[in-house]
Amino acid sequence: MQFTVETSSGSARTGVLKMDRGMIHTPAFMPVGTIGTVKAMSPEELKEIGAEIILSNTYHLYLRPGHKIIESLGGLHAFMHWDRPILTDSGGFQVYSLSALRKIEEDGVHFKSHLDGSMHFLGPDEAMMIQASLGSDIAMVLDDCAPYPASYEYAMDSVFRTIKWAARCRELRREGQALFGIVQGSLYEKLRKKNIEELVGIGFDGYAVGGLSVGEPKEDMHRMIRFTAPLLPETQPRYLMGIGELGDVLKAVEAGFDMFDCVMPTRNARNGTLFTSNGKVSIKRQEFKADREPLDLACDCYTCSNYSRGYLRHLFLSKEILSMRLNTIHNLRFYLNFFSDMRKSIGEGTFGGFKQKWEAILL
Amino acid sequence: MQFTVETSSGSARTGVLKMDRGMIHTPAFMPVGTIGTVKAMSPEELKEIGAEIILSNTYHLYLRPGHKIIESLGGLHAFMHWDRPILTDSGGFQVYSLSALRKIEEDGVHFKSHLDGSMHFLGPDEAMMIQASLGSDIAMVLDDCAPYPASYEYAMDSVFRTIKWAARCRELRREGQALFGIVQGSLYEKLRKKNIEELVGIGFDGYAVGGLSVGEPKEDMHRMIRFTAPLLPETQPRYLMGIGELGDVLKAVEAGFDMFDCVMPTRNARNGTLFTSNGKVSIKRQEFKADREPLDLACDCYTCSNYSRGYLRHLFLSKEILSMRLNTIHNLRFYLNFFSDMRKSIGEGTFGGFKQKWEAILL
Repeated sequence: MQFTVETSSGSARTGVLKMDRGMIHTPAFMPVGTIGTVKAMSPEELKEIGAEIILSNTYHLYLRPGHKIIESLGGLHAFMHWDRPILTDSGGFQVYSLSALRKIEEDGVHFKSHLDGSMHFLGPDEAMMIQASLGSDIAMVLDDCAPYPASYEYAMDSVFRTIKWAARCRELRREGQALFGIVQGSLYEKLRKKNIEELVGIGFDGYAVGGLSVGEPKEDMHRMIRFTAPLLPETQPRYLMGIGELGDVLKAVEAGFDMFDCVMPTRNARNGTLFTSNGKVSIKRQEFKADREPLDLACDCYTCSNYSRGYLRHLFLSKEILSMRLNTIHNLRFYLNFFSDMRKSIGEGTFGGFKQKWEAILL
Repeated sequence: MQFTVETSSGSARTGVLKMDRGMIHTPAFMPVGTIGTVKAMSPEELKEIGAEIILSNTYHLYLRPGHKIIESLGGLHAFMHWDRPILTDSGGFQVYSLSALRKIEEDGVHFKSHLDGSMHFLGPDEAMMIQASLGSDIAMVLDDCAPYPASYEYAMDSVFRTIKWAARCRELRREGQALFGIVQGSLYEKLRKKNIEELVGIGFDGYAVGGLSVGEPKEDMHRMIRFTAPLLPETQPRYLMGIGELGDVLKAVEAGFDMFDCVMPTRNARNGTLFTSNGKVSIKRQEFKADREPLDLACDCYTCSNYSRGYLRHLFLSKEILSMRLNTIHNLRFYLNFFSDMRKSIGEGTFGGFKQKWEAILL
């Protein structure tokens, strides 16, 4: 893996992440393929809209179908018929957010499956072993995500565990699989700083900020984004985990983040909330009933090229599978176009104007 | 519309139905696109697997979004982005099978919508008007489908109404839209014959046999298939409505039927039941867990070319949208290949062997 910063505008920057399976232009948006499929999309459709990398979930794939099954079927790329890069999270966040019961110990977490209630253990060794079986291009260290609100003491413990686990994951790093560290520390700048310093001391291929968007006020999230970005090494990719509201993305890119993932475009699509160059719209709207226009005249996606708002409304109200397909194609294309335009604006030194324009639309 | 019988083998025959929007090779299978989408499929995918015509439902489209809406959006072809032929049923069967309440009168049916309980009236004038708004390539007359079992008197009344309504529909036939008559008569040969004679006297572009597969024993269905086919004009397409189990299709083609529609391949796909060259399989099967093979080694579809049984099982158990997509592509491609192979066997005079081979597999 090789990362090159190409242009910058203030702290915002564009770059290229070169990997064996393909190039990733940053700032990059990674569609989420939780259990080995980006919901409603085929891999060919993902390529057509310009996805360069997707994210998949260690926790989900470990529980079902099981990483050993995926390994025996040739790894995650062959399994899901996707030959471009895949980043796998470590499962830390899902253990925190999904499992009914969890008991954190010094060497890992005992947790109960959200699928069948069975008990499992996930430590740094397990997280690395699972990600090795999946064969992802970028693996993430196992982290301990503190809930919001968290006391200073709790957050400090979680940072110490995160550092300890990161060090162990680093020892298990495999040739050919990049490994990113994860920064925790809740809303405490001192802890975030400590976590970053320790991670950088260990040395990773990239650095991610986790533990945000877990219920804290937006101002606190934005403060942490602004605080952490400049402390992360300039020469390596900076990944802001799980944050994808475009208003937040703009602030994070301004601060110097390079990579993003979020279920928002795909989940909203399935719920009938679509992104357009004029802001979000609900496809259910009565006024779309006999509307011949495409959803977004400014969009070049398959959906906007071939279907009317009237048809999209009809499919959504009829709960048709094609509704989720067409809406997902559009929302993801919208996101990827947004990122591509954002990169262009950084390269041309007009990111400030781009941000201002979109902040007005997104309000 | 122009129909030419090309080859025959006994009463089984191949032909070509030439329409403004494209050619249809018969015996033909028409995938069902109930409400303006073949569930889980895009129009491009339908073309890729070789669909030459699809069926859509007047009753459903009339209730939602409404035929006037579709007309104002350019007709059903533009609405759903499908430029090949469409056959629309008349709504008679859905009124019979779906509406909570119906009251049959001499000039049509009062019925209650299965969507919102609102009351509606469908007569031959309405059926033709709706199908004119939709702009389908082949329209069907409004028929009165008798339930099973039906007394001779009930079935006779329904045949008389069907004939009367057919005559009225014929008066309203529009240039550029083919119109097929429908034969009712339950399991009474005398009534079936009477219905056919009257329809042929009126004159239609094609003839359909309805009112079968409504609960009667298979032997009775097969008897009616064998009885009606030879009474229908040889020079026009014969359509066996709603029957698509392959064993039944083989018997109907042997008797001389040319056109078929059925939700079985699409519905089964969504339920995880898949057709293969060795018979039906449930994709849930435990033994597929780590199976690297494609679903059907003999199949050339997108699904079989790119995915393993293990992945298809995983997607199905995880209730992923892509599961329904990949399964539907496969089942429809299987059906269309089956029909294409069947046509070939008729042309080569080997239909008897084809039928025997498949009857052994389907058992």
